[in-house]
Amino acid sequence: MYEELKERVLKANLDLVKHSLVLFTWGNVSEIDREKGVFAIKPSGVPYDKLRAEDIVVLDMDGKVVDGKLRPSSDMPTHLVLFKAFPNIGGVAHTHSTYATAWAQTGKNIPCLGTTQADYFHGDVPCTADMTSSQIDGDYEIETGNVIVETFKGIEPTHVPGVLVKNHGPFTWGKNADEAVYHSVVLEEIAKMDSITLALNPAATIRPEIIEKHFMRKHGPNAYYGQK
Amino acid sequence: MYEELKERVLKANLDLVKHSLVLFTWGNVSEIDREKGVFAIKPSGVPYDKLRAEDIVVLDMDGKVVDGKLRPSSDMPTHLVLFKAFPNIGGVAHTHSTYATAWAQTGKNIPCLGTTQADYFHGDVPCTADMTSSQIDGDYEIETGNVIVETFKGIEPTHVPGVLVKNHGPFTWGKNADEAVYHSVVLEEIAKMDSITLALNPAATIRPEIIEKHFMRKHGPNAYYGQK
Amino acid sequence: MYEELKERVLKANLDLVKHSLVLFTWGNVSEIDREKGVFAIKPSGVPYDKLRAEDIVVLDMDGKVVDGKLRPSSDMPTHLVLFKAFPNIGGVAHTHSTYATAWAQTGKNIPCLGTTQADYFHGDVPCTADMTSSQIDGDYEIETGNVIVETFKGIEPTHVPGVLVKNHGPFTWGKNADEAVYHSVVLEEIAKMDSITLALNPAATIRPEIIEKHFMRKHGPNAYYGQK
Amino acid sequence: MYEELKERVLKANLDLVKHSLVLFTWGNVSEIDREKGVFAIKPSGVPYDKLRAEDIVVLDMDGKVVDGKLRPSSDMPTHLVLFKAFPNIGGVAHTHSTYATAWAQTGKNIPCLGTTQADYFHGDVPCTADMTSSQIDGDYEIETGNVIVETFKGIEPTHVPGVLVKNHGPFTWGKNADEAVYHSVVLEEIAKMDSITLALNPAATIRPEIIEKHFMRKHGPNAYYGQK
Repeated sequence: MYEELKERVLKANLDLVKHSLVLFTWGNVSEIDREKGVFAIKPSGVPYDKLRAEDIVVLDMDGKVVDGKLRPSSDMPTHLVLFKAFPNIGGVAHTHSTYATAWAQTGKNIPCLGTTQADYFHGDVPCTADMTSSQIDGDYEIETGNVIVETFKGIEPTHVPGVLVKNHGPFTWGKNADEAVYHSVVLEEIAKMDSITLALNPAATIRPEIIEKHFMRKHGPNAYYGQK
Repeated sequence: MYEELKERVLKANLDLVKHSLVLFTWGNVSEIDREKGVFAIKPSGVPYDKLRAEDIVVLDMDGKVVDGKLRPSSDMPTHLVLFKAFPNIGGVAHTHSTYATAWAQTGKNIPCLGTTQADYFHGDVPCTADMTSSQIDGDYEIETGNVIVETFKGIEPTHVPGVLVKNHGPFTWGKNADEAVYHSVVLEEIAKMDSITLALNPAATIRPEIIEKHFMRKHGPNAYYGQK
Repeated sequence: MYEELKERVLKANLDLVKHSLVLFTWGNVSEIDREKGVFAIKPSGVPYDKLRAEDIVVLDMDGKVVDGKLRPSSDMPTHLVLFKAFPNIGGVAHTHSTYATAWAQTGKNIPCLGTTQADYFHGDVPCTADMTSSQIDGDYEIETGNVIVETFKGIEPTHVPGVLVKNHGPFTWGKNADEAVYHSVVLEEIAKMDSITLALNPAATIRPEIIEKHFMRKHGPNAYYGQK
Repeated sequence: MYEELKERVLKANLDLVKHSLVLFTWGNVSEIDREKGVFAIKPSGVPYDKLRAEDIVVLDMDGKVVDGKLRPSSDMPTHLVLFKAFPNIGGVAHTHSTYATAWAQTGKNIPCLGTTQADYFHGDVPCTADMTSSQIDGDYEIETGNVIVETFKGIEPTHVPGVLVKNHGPFTWGKNADEAVYHSVVLEEIAKMDSITLALNPAATIRPEIIEKHFMRKHGPNAYYGQK
């Protein structure tokens, strides 16, 4: 019943390995089927080289398993919060990729310093605030989603398709699981570039018009990048 | 009619992948046939693993497609400006390679601190000035070419075969597409070396005679590097 | 008699290569069979690509060879001290992996700045004190073990499964050889992340509740990560 | 006549590629046969993937080709100076490996901060002084050798098997071509480690006894590392 969804989610999870974004089991990708009211995600703690489509867990919008024999990723509730809060996204990816995670540990936004970032992110990649003690001791994974949603008050999630959860690591999203992973790759690369740039010039800046131009030539109403 | 040109341009584009200089579709290489008055370039947004010689787009010196069914790279007008302004170059390459792009984000020239750079670049690799608002809002890709040409007033392009476009990334060139890619590889490597050097010694310097000696033993009238 | 033990120790040693943690012969892994009162370790100076199960050396708890024709790793006495002092560990790994070794050269603990570390280490990864002249000139490898044991006064080794030996490099451990290697991979990755984080923000911090939450969701009595 | 020598030199040159120490043609390795009074070296500017044993150039101790049709590496005179000045070495390697070259650009010695370095280098890896104008404009490659020899006044070359030529890059040596390459790999790794260490702790130090202990357990009269 959910075969195609599970195949796409399997492929997207394996793409994290292909792009060297995960060690061991440190990542998970999900995709939602909004018509059917379900989403599929990697099972918890299963090594990527043993992962099969039948291991992918399908859940309803209350977070109850509707297909699959394994436990879903422990980060599942975070994905669910994002799918509910951001109605225009179709896939979510979470990794501990080296540079993006290192930035998450800084507690700082990744500033937009170049067109590589502006081609995908309409400005900085935000870092969440500290979680409170009651958030950490409560429904931690749900609260992780809530702190992301809080961070995006006033930001359109499809224009800034990723976030750093402070002291944890990146979550990215896109129209489907594949694009969520794509944005994880982009985020890791711009996190690396900015760490090099800021070591060489802590005062590096960019003209806002450059950000606007690059984001819009790919994503605006008159976009002209790529084939028609 | 343009088969050999397209094959060379295909190979040069794929060499960017081989040398780990591009992620996804983030790069493009072109080569000019000055006798025929045409140049060939990668199509826009086509993944490298699906790129075939027949996808390469051939254009005349007004930037009109004369062969090929796909849209050319969105950076095509920049390549065209360079081919027109620098009559002794035959190929142009553009990437978002990690270290060279990080340097472009600093807004600083890559200083010549060693013989690795001096073997190919007769001095610093310059970084362009900020583009003005009217340049960004106008014919952006043409203006990107213009700001490069402006930067090379007083510099012989064949002696400094590359540039950093501020907040964007590197463009390199050479006698053909293959050599343009070669210089992209060199530029990425020296960008990395200099970032390491300057972290260890911000006051690193080189004697100008060393630059002169190394550039000339490879490129001067009495060059003696390599086979006859 | 010790075939399975030797096979596991062989595999664990080869996994160091697979995870790019060793150059040449710069590493060694051991595993103990506490019932039989023996442990097995890599022979000294044998290249990994020539290593066979029959080369693995088995020793008793006095450090005498009971099986095998080759000399054990010169670091063998350090492993033995750890097996004796930490009764709940079953495997030990030693590498000169790049970032963990660079941290060992700093003489500083690797601070816990994120959940990647907290998922495996219940706090900082400690760095040992300087060894004294008499320790260095005495039974150096035994004293290396002793200085590690000294560092863990007040720390439960199974909750902090690794250490930096000052000016030398990391030792890690786990329930068996395989898990010891796993922790070597984790340690190298967090060493890299922290070096990037601290360059961007020397004042980076984490709330202690985050460390507690992540360590406990994987290792506490109510752990819920992974499959049942 | 020189087949075995040429095969060994070929293999050692290809090992530079295997260990990712060279881009394009940026490196060369040589080995001397002191009984026959000849040494063999890579030809100049020949890509590694096309290099065959028959391309290796054999020269006498006056630097005259005695076997081979190609020009020797342009750095050949530097190798010859080293073979003459250091009678106990049998092979020389030169690369532009990233971190070692970045250190050469700093003009600073690589300080011995750990046992990884002390296992092979009895102290710091020295960096040469600036070459004078007359050295640069004279027999540049011979003078490069001379400035290395000058740097080693009071240092036993077999105890410190490598050097940084300021603003240029590393030269290493060993008992044969193979060991010279081995030391190039070690040098690149310790150059990387020290750059990470010093960014985290610019005041990092080591007790001299540690250096002594590690160098001697591998190279001293009572060495006990490896098999008998």
